[in-house]
Formats: sequence, C-alpha cells, structure tokens
Amino acid sequence: MPVINSPKGFNIAVASAGIKSPGRKDMALIYTEKPAYIAASFTTNKVKAAPVLVDMVHARKGRAHAVVINSGNANACTGQQGMTDARETVSLVARGLGVAEESVYVCSTGVIGVTMPMKRVRSGINDLLKGLGNAGPEDAAKAIMTTDTFHKIVEKRITLGGKRGSMVAIAKGAGMIEPNMATMLCYILTDFNVDRASLKVAFEQAVEMSFNRITVDGDRSTSDTAMVLANGAAGNEVLVYGSTDFGKFASALRDITYELARLIVKDGEGASKVIEIRLKGARSEKAALKAARSIGNSLLFKTAMYGGDPNWGRIMATLGRSEVPFAEERVDISLGKVMVVKGGLDAGRIKAAEKELHKPEVKVTVNLNSGEFDASVLTCDLTETYIRINSEYTT
Amino acid sequence: MPVINSPKGFNIAVASAGIKSPGRKDMALIYTEKPAYIAASFTTNKVKAAPVLVDMVHARKGRAHAVVINSGNANACTGQQGMTDARETVSLVARGLGVAEESVYVCSTGVIGVTMPMKRVRSGINDLLKGLGNAGPEDAAKAIMTTDTFHKIVEKRITLGGKRGSMVAIAKGAGMIEPNMATMLCYILTDFNVDRASLKVAFEQAVEMSFNRITVDGDRSTSDTAMVLANGAAGNEVLVYGSTDFGKFASALRDITYELARLIVKDGEGASKVIEIRLKGARSEKAALKAARSIGNSLLFKTAMYGGDPNWGRIMATLGRSEVPFAEERVDISLGKVMVVKGGLDAGRIKAAEKELHKPEVKVTVNLNSGEFDASVLTCDLTETYIRINSEYTT
Repeated sequence: MPVINSPKGFNIAVASAGIKSPGRKDMALIYTEKPAYIAASFTTNKVKAAPVLVDMVHARKGRAHAVVINSGNANACTGQQGMTDARETVSLVARGLGVAEESVYVCSTGVIGVTMPMKRVRSGINDLLKGLGNAGPEDAAKAIMTTDTFHKIVEKRITLGGKRGSMVAIAKGAGMIEPNMATMLCYILTDFNVDRASLKVAFEQAVEMSFNRITVDGDRSTSDTAMVLANGAAGNEVLVYGSTDFGKFASALRDITYELARLIVKDGEGASKVIEIRLKGARSEKAALKAARSIGNSLLFKTAMYGGDPNWGRIMATLGRSEVPFAEERVDISLGKVMVVKGGLDAGRIKAAEKELHKPEVKVTVNLNSGEFDASVLTCDLTETYIRINSEYTT
Repeated sequence: MPVINSPKGFNIAVASAGIKSPGRKDMALIYTEKPAYIAASFTTNKVKAAPVLVDMVHARKGRAHAVVINSGNANACTGQQGMTDARETVSLVARGLGVAEESVYVCSTGVIGVTMPMKRVRSGINDLLKGLGNAGPEDAAKAIMTTDTFHKIVEKRITLGGKRGSMVAIAKGAGMIEPNMATMLCYILTDFNVDRASLKVAFEQAVEMSFNRITVDGDRSTSDTAMVLANGAAGNEVLVYGSTDFGKFASALRDITYELARLIVKDGEGASKVIEIRLKGARSEKAALKAARSIGNSLLFKTAMYGGDPNWGRIMATLGRSEVPFAEERVDISLGKVMVVKGGLDAGRIKAAEKELHKPEVKVTVNLNSGEFDASVLTCDLTETYIRINSEYTT
C-alpha cells in the first residue's frame, strides 16, 4: 500500500507517553496552521467523558487548529479532576502551538474511571510539539488504537472547483459500537475549502448513514467523537450547499464514513464476518431502522451467523419482539441470494443458504412487505473471542 | 432428594415420541379429572407459535383438564399447517380423556419454522394416554427440557383453610430469556381450592416479580407460556383475595415463581454465575426497571462479570445510554458488599471487589440517589459456552 500523506496544511506527530503500555505509541497530535472549519458529532450517552464535554463547547465556535488524542485512558467518570486534566491538556497544546484554547480539541479512549496520568500526558505533549510533522496519518491511526486489530484509514483524492484536494480519514473502534456512535474516534482531514454551515450538513448526513447504523454489541461509549476538519489549503473556491461540486464533496464524505464504519464492524471485537441487514417494506423509516437494529443486536442471530447456521426462526422471533408493525405471513427473508422464508414460511432452501453464510460478508434481506420504507444496518457476528477479549479487559 | 409427588388429583405421563432425538423423553401430559381453574401468561412476542394462539383462546374460559407438552419442535412460524397440527393435538388428547377441547392446552418448544412431525406426535399422544399416572412431576420436568442442563422443579407443602395441600412447579428455559417471559415453559400445579379471579391476580403478580424480571440474552421467544392449575382436590374452603390464607397462598406462589426464575437464570446458556441487579433511588419504578434491565442486558457488563472484572465503568456507560434520568455525580455502585463507586467516582476498592465477583451468586447494587424507586433484575454472565451452544443449535 502506498504511503498516505496528510492533506495540504496538516501536520501530524505521534508519541509514546506510557499511558497504554510502555513503548507503544499512545498519543497523536493533528495540527493545521491555517484554521480549519470543524463539524463534529459526539456520543449521546448521558455519561460523557471529560474531553467530550470540553470539545462540545469548543465545537460550537466551529474552528480548529489542533486535535490531541490519547489511547489507554478514556478520562471518563473522573469527575472534576477529569475536567481539570482535559482542560490542562488543551491549554498545554494551545500554548505550545500559539493558538487559542477554543481551537484545540482533546480526545481520550481507553479504560473508564481512572484519573489521567498527567505527568505522562505532559511529557507526551512535549514530545508531540517537538516532533510535529515527523509522522503521517497512518501513524496517528495506529496510535489511537485500543482493542483494534488493524488501523483504519481511508483516503480520497478528487478535483473540486478546479483544484486537486484530498480527504484522509482515520478511525478507531472495535467494541461498544451501537446506534448513535461507538467507542469510536474518527478524524477526517481535508484541504478543501468548504462553507462552514454546508460542512456541518454534509457531515451530519454522512454520520447518520454510517456510524449511526453500525452495531457490534449494543453498547454505546462515553467517549465517541467524530469530526471533520476542512482547512481550505487546496485553494478551491468555497464549496457551498446546493452546488454540484459540494454534492461531490458530500458524496465523498459519505463514502468515506461508510467505508470507515464497515472497517470498524469488520474489526468488531472477535468478529469473523461483516453482516449487512437490509430491512425493506416497513411502514416508516423509524420502524425499518428499529427492526434492522433489533436483528443486528440479537445475540441469537449473531451467534447463528457465527456458526453459519441459517436459523431464520431467530430473525422472525427478533422481529416479533421489536415492536414494529408487520404481518408474519408477509415476511420474506433472504440470506445472501437465497430466499429462506417466503410469506412467513420456510422456503425449503436451508442447504443452499448455508453456503451463503460461509462468506466473510453476508447480506441479510428482510422484506416485511408492509410499507415503503427501507433501512440498512451493519453488524458483525458474535464469537468466543468477543467474550475472551471483554472478560479480560482491565484485570 | 426425596421423590416429589403430584398434588392430589393430578396425573402425569411422559413419552418418547422421537421429536427431540431417538429414545429421549420429549412429550408430557398433565391431567386432572376434577377440572382446574387456570391462570396463564403468554409471550408478548408479536410472532406467536401456533400452540400459544390456541391456548390463549382456551385460557379465556379459565378451565383446564389437561396440558400436553412436547420438546424438540416449537411449532412456530409454521402458518396454517401449524394451527391445524396444534388443534389436532388438542383434539386427540380431549377425545382420549373424554373432556372438552377448550379445557386442553398444548405447548411446544424447540426449533422454529419446521412443521410438526404429526405421525410421531399422534403415536406419542397414544403412549401418553395409555401411560397416564405412571410418571411424576420430575419426569415431566425432564421431558420438556431443550438446552437446559438440569431439570427445574420446586415444591411447597402448606396448610391453608385447615387442609394440607401442595404446590408443585416445573419449568424449562435456558436461553432467549428476557423481559416479559422467555423460551420458558412453566406449569404450577396445586390442589388448593382457589377462587378463579383471585388466582389470576396472584399469578399475574407472581409472574411480574419473577419471570418478567429475568434476562439471559435479551431475546424473547415465540412460545413462552406459564400457567397455574388449581383443581381444589385438597378440599379446603375456597381461598379468596383479601383473606389471610389467600395471602399465604399468593406469597407461596411468588416464592415458587421467583425460585424457578432463579433456576432458569442459573441454567442460562453457558452461565457461570447468577447476578442480581438491584437498582435503587430512581425517579420512577419504570426508570428503575429500565436501568436495571439495561445493565442486565449489556454484553460488556455480562462479560466483565464472567471475567470477575470489577470494571464499573461499563455499568456507568450502560446507565448513561439507558435513557433514564440521573446525575452521574450521585451514583453509588457496590459489587457484593464492596462499594466501588461513591458519588460517581472510583472508591479505590477494586481489589476487594474482585473477590466478591468470584462467588457463584453476585449482587450488584446501583443507587442513583435520584428518587425513591427500586427494582431488581436477575441475570447471568456471558461466556464462551453461550456462543458455542447458540452457534451450533440447528445445524
């Protein structure tokens, strides 16, 4: 794979601060000298980590110079001390770079309920400031990993408004992925010049169709943060909502977030396959999404997928408890290309369906035949490895 | 363990019909010559198995002479054929016993989506009718097992209204156990003479505080059925709501259902421990129950319990996504007797808490300190064995 460079005007550094485990890269700094517009999306969990609370305030201003990220400690459930630590981190970076504190964002991921080892963080920030520019997006993608088994990065190079520009996105996240974000951090850097309000609209749509439609285990983290920074260094004419070029930009953004979402599910803790649940023919979009999520979160469904078991009864039972309106006798279910249920009854194709389930990516199509609305959700299977990873996490 | 006899007037038979696997007992018949009052509770899943649909109609009449049960096939998602088969089963039993069809109940548990092997069922019914009285409640408890690793039976002998009587309850259920019933069948037989309406009230309360407050995997079955049959053969004066003796009867019924619920959770597929979640200080009972259930269904919590990992951050994160009102800084959490979180912060007792988690039954107490309402939920941990059992079920 060729090296992926930062978009114009972005500089990156990584450091080993000893927060995760000795010698491993666990901090990253992203810096743009030219201030970027920022659009961000944060966890909807009522319990929010201190960095999230700090960033939410900064994001209202909509400008960003820098993002500092650490893995190994989430700085969540840490009370006043956590807030003090998050603010100090922001302050040290702002001072070091000579920028306003409100243009600096801090993100932390890792164990919950443990105060930040600030001595290490301070020394890490020093290293980051000194080393600025000596790392690329891939290094940052690696530094923010926790239980991830591979780093996640997506790049797109396109021409908009007559200028060549790029979008580079990195993400982390493997478990605790559910509706409305995940233990997920995602940073999309672009040098395109985009109108601030338009950037926000494009990003919200992209997040809704990607990160908000994936589920690994139904849990939702206290630290989820996704953001896009657009610094305009490509020099194109400003992209504004409604124009053709903005449409292309928004579409690229959607592709990128969807691809990252797919990678996150693929790396779902212990996952052996990615499963797309396409729910069709519901009476409303809300119902379609609710039914799709119920299936995507059903342990019995996820274990059946793991076992390559075309046990469609579990899908029917899950639909039945999803509180979504439908008629049992109208339901069609396909596993891959094989229709296993027709009109609520077994279609006699179990053997053929088994083969579909041995593929690493499986499409499950459920048609309620009760309305006009569709929704899709990405999920993964549930394996012994998930149990092992999560029963051994802190101790 | 001494042999548990049926309450007076109840006769039981079991048979090997070859529905489950050759040679294993897979059918049971419970019969009372003197008609019993019946109170019953059925799955709230929108997709209901054929036997459930048949029984719901019969239960409205409130009288029972017989219950015929099979394991190995749930007769669910089987359409018109399923209804025909369930009705034929009822009809054969009614004719054989010389009682009205509407006083006969049929229950099926096992795989979904496969039509009943009626030839085997018919021959099984023949054996049951011929063998009536040659089996006890324990045999029936064994015949209705599916993935259960032990049979579940509870007996109480008490004196009410001057007469000695008994209550014998059998149940099956191990996976797919969630709010509002489970893949659970439960039959409580008693020879006490109880007023019909009063029996209904007592049973509803008992079910609400037991079977509706347990969860193994968040899934809910299409076949859940619990019923109590009271045939009055003890000859006591009729027990009516409001009397002291009725109070004792209702209390015994609650004890029995709670104990069965505990046994079901204990036998939760792959479970290594029973966990009681006591949610205190919520603003409403609904909120208390919702928060308790969120924790009880969280995969991250359940895997942490399995690993004996006092990772209270997962409890906080689950509370945060439960959509229940509370203030993070007021939350106290205890694992067993050890308070690990005080006022939303780590109480520094992780090492002591670890010991509590190595016990086979763990109490997790969460006090939101936000109101006056409490609720408890029973759950179990999530282990590799659950995955193994459920990924290998049908194929």
